[in-house]
Amino acid sequence: MNSRFKFLYLNLLLLFSLSGKAQEKITIGEKQIISSTILNEKREIWIHLPKTYNDPGINPAKYPVIYLLDGEINFDYYTGMSDFLAKPPYADMPECIVVGIKNTERTRDLTPTKSQKKSPVNPGVVLFNDSGGSENFVRFLQEELKPFISKNYRTQNYSVLAGHSFGGLFAVNVLLTHPEYFNAYVANDPSLWWDQKVLISKTKEYLEKNKKFPMHKTLYVSQANNEEQNKNWNSDMTQAIEEFKEIIEKSGSLNYKHHFFEDEVHGTVSYPGNYDAVKFIFKGFRTDIKKLSENPKLLEEDYARFSEKAGTVFSPSETYLNTILKFMNNNGFKESEDYFLNLKNRLYPKIK
Amino acid sequence: MNSRFKFLYLNLLLLFSLSGKAQEKITIGEKQIISSTILNEKREIWIHLPKTYNDPGINPAKYPVIYLLDGEINFDYYTGMSDFLAKPPYADMPECIVVGIKNTERTRDLTPTKSQKKSPVNPGVVLFNDSGGSENFVRFLQEELKPFISKNYRTQNYSVLAGHSFGGLFAVNVLLTHPEYFNAYVANDPSLWWDQKVLISKTKEYLEKNKKFPMHKTLYVSQANNEEQNKNWNSDMTQAIEEFKEIIEKSGSLNYKHHFFEDEVHGTVSYPGNYDAVKFIFKGFRTDIKKLSENPKLLEEDYARFSEKAGTVFSPSETYLNTILKFMNNNGFKESEDYFLNLKNRLYPKIK
Repeated sequence: MNSRFKFLYLNLLLLFSLSGKAQEKITIGEKQIISSTILNEKREIWIHLPKTYNDPGINPAKYPVIYLLDGEINFDYYTGMSDFLAKPPYADMPECIVVGIKNTERTRDLTPTKSQKKSPVNPGVVLFNDSGGSENFVRFLQEELKPFISKNYRTQNYSVLAGHSFGGLFAVNVLLTHPEYFNAYVANDPSLWWDQKVLISKTKEYLEKNKKFPMHKTLYVSQANNEEQNKNWNSDMTQAIEEFKEIIEKSGSLNYKHHFFEDEVHGTVSYPGNYDAVKFIFKGFRTDIKKLSENPKLLEEDYARFSEKAGTVFSPSETYLNTILKFMNNNGFKESEDYFLNLKNRLYPKIK
Repeated sequence: MNSRFKFLYLNLLLLFSLSGKAQEKITIGEKQIISSTILNEKREIWIHLPKTYNDPGINPAKYPVIYLLDGEINFDYYTGMSDFLAKPPYADMPECIVVGIKNTERTRDLTPTKSQKKSPVNPGVVLFNDSGGSENFVRFLQEELKPFISKNYRTQNYSVLAGHSFGGLFAVNVLLTHPEYFNAYVANDPSLWWDQKVLISKTKEYLEKNKKFPMHKTLYVSQANNEEQNKNWNSDMTQAIEEFKEIIEKSGSLNYKHHFFEDEVHGTVSYPGNYDAVKFIFKGFRTDIKKLSENPKLLEEDYARFSEKAGTVFSPSETYLNTILKFMNNNGFKESEDYFLNLKNRLYPKIK
């Protein structure tokens, strides 16, 4: 064995023995880097694919996409939640691809106007010098990130934008400036106090001009118990959210839910807020498998009703149909089994 | 280059180019295999370490452990949740190690007695032939799994057992037979109807004999809206849980919460139940960082109060103290900063 050969050989051995010793990791996604021309920087994106995405036993499916701001904070629990809630037979939502967007300059990206504020705790410090870049950031989402996701993953034409605090402010601003970009918007305890409540004025202007929001748009707003926060930070967080609520409810043209969380503060409300939000956005998606044995047509009726509400066609997934078929077979509901076999063959022609 | 050398060389190249192309994965845990003598089988265990576990900037810390039944179903969202809820400065719970236990023979492991039942949907099918092995399974937990975890990971002497359905039945049974094994028990929609409500009888017997449960034990029970389920499956799920609730509340010797989820069914209640459960178990853990600037002693008072309730000493983590120090420094609270610097040096002597 010459020495170079020996060196390589030992390296190979080392490599294999290391990988042999390593425990199997549990992974929930992968990181991708996108070079953004619009933002003139590289952006790190965390991508989660639902459990069935690479299932060789079913036809390749397309999935709605949830764009999640502050990705580094919310990605782990959000993806666990969306997978769990999408599990048949009690699925509260469709399986979704989740795209977490990691921050670089958070204030720059998420705020709609240039505005500054003296720190309420230390007036010597001026905050938010880099604010006002949200229009650029939404262009990045629409013109660079979404095409990247659609090109590399199988996406259905339904998307959600979810943010918290400045991220909630951003989501509301996108709804006002580009309502067509997303189907549903989630704003957890949004910072609508921003720049003398500039988005409240903008909402009023929008409704004066357009009378109503486009059809089939959903907005979910959570509100934390910020009494303590308002006192300490001199903030009108609560008042701005409540003013906004009144305007939106009066307009009546959004599929809108506002929920106040008595036991949550600004920093903790995202977790239950995001759960409550998907339950609201996808309300009507869950169907009752047990009722289907007697009335198999109910499935398509339920999906038609939900699709009408969502403004996009949702069909029962192949995985759900397989679950239904197994249920009917196990319990001897032969007629219903035949019905769903036909439906499955129609929706999902067999893989060769 | 001889041919063998060439072959190895090409393999090496291939290996490196593959690993170079692979995206960085986002991982939340690792799988371990334990050979159980008690169960006479290999068991797959999923282990999640909290974010700071391997942080080289802090002293190696010890963490409470949450043992999660039906690991393969609950691990992903549970670990995301516990990390999020443990994030300073608004931590609702301490950072925890989460140990998910994957099923092999679920009914065997989780049921306390041998009992059978005809399928309510198809009376020709007899269910639960393999039931009644829970005493063996709890011995596995106590004598094999816990020592394995303590030996391989840095654990604090505080542990939680969490289960759903048969897993909830199991958790209640462990509380009745070995209350000293865990500090807190979570039973999501537990199958207390099991074997003619054998655990209801057992609870009555326990209380007749012992008068009360040991000090500092916590039990959380969630209940789904099973009206539909009861109708279809001829089950007395709801009635059994409510009977149990009455007995436990009357005894008054547990730190006990029962919560009914109007909008959840048996298959979906675990998610909000597990969230509500940790909020209850660790109630009093969250401290208000803003109040600490004026009254730094509050931190130790809060922790002393929580420790008293939990029956175990909990101290502010080094990570939380660092967060507090940064907050005091950023906002010019010099006196408080000094106070917490002293506290930190006392609790966490510097790493050499």
